[in-house]
Amino acid sequence: MAGQAPVRILGLDPGLRHLGWGIIDAAGNRLSHIADGTIHTDSGDDLAKRLLELHEGIAAVIEQWQPDEAAVEETLSNVNPSSTLKLGMARGIALFSAAKAGLPVEQYLPMAVKKSVVGTGHADKVQVQHMVKMLLPGFQRSTADAADALAVAICHAHHAQTRRKVDNAILGIRR
Amino acid sequence: MAGQAPVRILGLDPGLRHLGWGIIDAAGNRLSHIADGTIHTDSGDDLAKRLLELHEGIAAVIEQWQPDEAAVEETLSNVNPSSTLKLGMARGIALFSAAKAGLPVEQYLPMAVKKSVVGTGHADKVQVQHMVKMLLPGFQRSTADAADALAVAICHAHHAQTRRKVDNAILGIRR
Repeated sequence: MAGQAPVRILGLDPGLRHLGWGIIDAAGNRLSHIADGTIHTDSGDDLAKRLLELHEGIAAVIEQWQPDEAAVEETLSNVNPSSTLKLGMARGIALFSAAKAGLPVEQYLPMAVKKSVVGTGHADKVQVQHMVKMLLPGFQRSTADAADALAVAICHAHHAQTRRKVDNAILGIRR
Repeated sequence: MAGQAPVRILGLDPGLRHLGWGIIDAAGNRLSHIADGTIHTDSGDDLAKRLLELHEGIAAVIEQWQPDEAAVEETLSNVNPSSTLKLGMARGIALFSAAKAGLPVEQYLPMAVKKSVVGTGHADKVQVQHMVKMLLPGFQRSTADAADALAVAICHAHHAQTRRKVDNAILGIRR
């Protein structure tokens, strides 16, 4: 069997103040770290300006790294309506920016991301970061937001691979 | 005193499913209705696609009507975190779309909008719609969302006029 062409995945962990992003290549079970970072906005700035900065930051990452697919962490809000609104704004810009660039985009709940990366849905942040480093040897020190974004990308790679196997099986049946 | 050049204002009442918009011209105390409408998205569609449609809808309105300033209703969420997240996404796209087009954008709480249009912060929707029709003679039947968007634009016109008077007074003192 010939090696599969890698799929390049953009993972996004959206927040209004810090938006983590990570790029990985996934070829079957093999994952490679390509790049990661965080887009920061100043909480003293105008809200509309901050949203514009988030979009421009994501657009620049997509332009530079040319991912094929995107995955966004679907964090559940647990604080108050004001924080939830801000989270919604940041996540809306993340989803919109991926769609605007023509990327198919999926959302994953934190529990699914943890299960995919650590093996259990109840892992803590330190475990997630540790496993991201284990799974992506090229990845060294970075921000917690960027590590979370890489974890979402890894989760998408696992789910996408499963989806492709199912699709191929269905195609096999249909043939 | 010469007549003031009108300022064209875009009012937005954001929602993920129905996003109301309205355009008015404000020349001092004189307000004129220019256009209004609602951008609808299909709740069965992919979230990223819906956010893209909201942005493209707002961008098309801005392109067609060329407003100078934008005002967005800052509805407080009162239902549940899931609805608040969706509201945040829609409002984020509204603020972003105005900023992307280079428009200065302000947010107004529903109470400020009601106070500005009806004279009291505790008016109901019917009163707001009635007063929007009184204040904007060209405006006839439309959706509730479009009427709310026009109300936000009227609120912005009143506040902007007050701001300009204050600015002029300060300039007068400085001269």
